[in-house]
Amino acid sequence: MKTLAAQVITPEDLLKHWQGHRALTRRVIELFPEKDFFEFSIGGMRTFSKLVDELLAIAAPGLKGIVNKEVKGFAEESDKLIFKAQYLEKWDEATSEINQYWEKLSIEDFNETFNLFGQYEFPVIQNILYFVDNEVHHRGQGYVYLRALGIDPPFFWER
Amino acid sequence: MKTLAAQVITPEDLLKHWQGHRALTRRVIELFPEKDFFEFSIGGMRTFSKLVDELLAIAAPGLKGIVNKEVKGFAEESDKLIFKAQYLEKWDEATSEINQYWEKLSIEDFNETFNLFGQYEFPVIQNILYFVDNEVHHRGQGYVYLRALGIDPPFFWER
Repeated sequence: MKTLAAQVITPEDLLKHWQGHRALTRRVIELFPEKDFFEFSIGGMRTFSKLVDELLAIAAPGLKGIVNKEVKGFAEESDKLIFKAQYLEKWDEATSEINQYWEKLSIEDFNETFNLFGQYEFPVIQNILYFVDNEVHHRGQGYVYLRALGIDPPFFWER
Repeated sequence: MKTLAAQVITPEDLLKHWQGHRALTRRVIELFPEKDFFEFSIGGMRTFSKLVDELLAIAAPGLKGIVNKEVKGFAEESDKLIFKAQYLEKWDEATSEINQYWEKLSIEDFNETFNLFGQYEFPVIQNILYFVDNEVHHRGQGYVYLRALGIDPPFFWER
């Protein structure tokens, strides 16, 4: 029988950590003026709505693939969302989907290799840390957009 | 005897994850033109050198406090660094300090509460995840600065 190596975070705490970040990102979306959410950008980068398209295409679909062991290509929504309210609704749907899929992950699953989106062949724990890091990274860009628009972003440690 | 709850990442992998992010941040520092590193900013935010001051004041000093169980206030460097090369040197010193302190952490330490900088009373694992998240967040801001300066940042997944 294989002994699991000593490890440092529980699945419950990791989910809480992830969803805490997602709650903060939701607040950043809320703070954008409707028009700027879809139009404002700096240095030729994507608008914040485009960045959120990416985040939505990663989180719940990525975890679904992991749980169902079903390798599917990365794809952003084909039917375009055109209001911020639709993004917030999608965001909340993803929040509960993530909670539901998470329940199905066993402790052993985290160390198994999964070919995320048919492109990233890594242990599941690394895929999930990547979801979080990628969101923090893009949200950090959103903070600059807000500041450039004269809007105070939420405190980073609010979750 | 208390059974440790099943957990999902080893200390070794968490250190690798953290240092991978730090290696990427180092490349972002390197990409800044000398002058812009100290002077460029958007929307009244801190320059990237100021953000790096914060990162340097958190990573090795924070971990040192955790390992020595010594509560010390947060303090950025008093003797100001004035060249980017000095920042890179400090960065590399911190890299090896972190590796050394990490060796001294036991698996139990990660779940113990520590009053980081005398302000943040959380389990050590949460403090460490905060170090990483905070760095990813500020580096994301650095990416926008680079783009605004017409410089391509490194790929986010490079570590």
